[in-house]
Amino acid sequence: MSQKAVFYHAGCPVCADAERQFADSLDPRKYDIEIVHLGQAKNRIAEAEAAGVKSVPAFVIGGHPYHINFGADLAALK
Amino acid sequence: MSQKAVFYHAGCPVCADAERQFADSLDPRKYDIEIVHLGQAKNRIAEAEAAGVKSVPAFVIGGHPYHINFGADLAALK
Repeated sequence: MSQKAVFYHAGCPVCADAERQFADSLDPRKYDIEIVHLGQAKNRIAEAEAAGVKSVPAFVIGGHPYHINFGADLAALK
Repeated sequence: MSQKAVFYHAGCPVCADAERQFADSLDPRKYDIEIVHLGQAKNRIAEAEAAGVKSVPAFVIGGHPYHINFGADLAALK
């Protein structure tokens, strides 16, 4: 069974690149990927923050945050 | 044709976790993944640095660095 992986981004260039290289490239047999634009879905910011996300782009997999490079602080999206 | 993706790590817990979640989980149809332990292969540090890697764990894909969280500074591995 595939595991849920949420990719949080904010439409920034660093985000778009990480989305292409990772969110679009993880093995679909391993991960069920949801892509969330926090600039558009501000109601999802709290859940990202609760999982430990400090900046975007980032994944949350199994409750753990994985920041990929640095695009924008989560605080800047509120 | 799959693209070359190099995953650099140093055996740290953050590295091992990132390896499991990403290096072992990228779609093998998209990426040809090489895993490099920079603590053991110090002769590869220069190439990682040249690609812009500042810390491990990190990927280099298409010449671009992708840092995942933070395990150790590259400088600490020299």
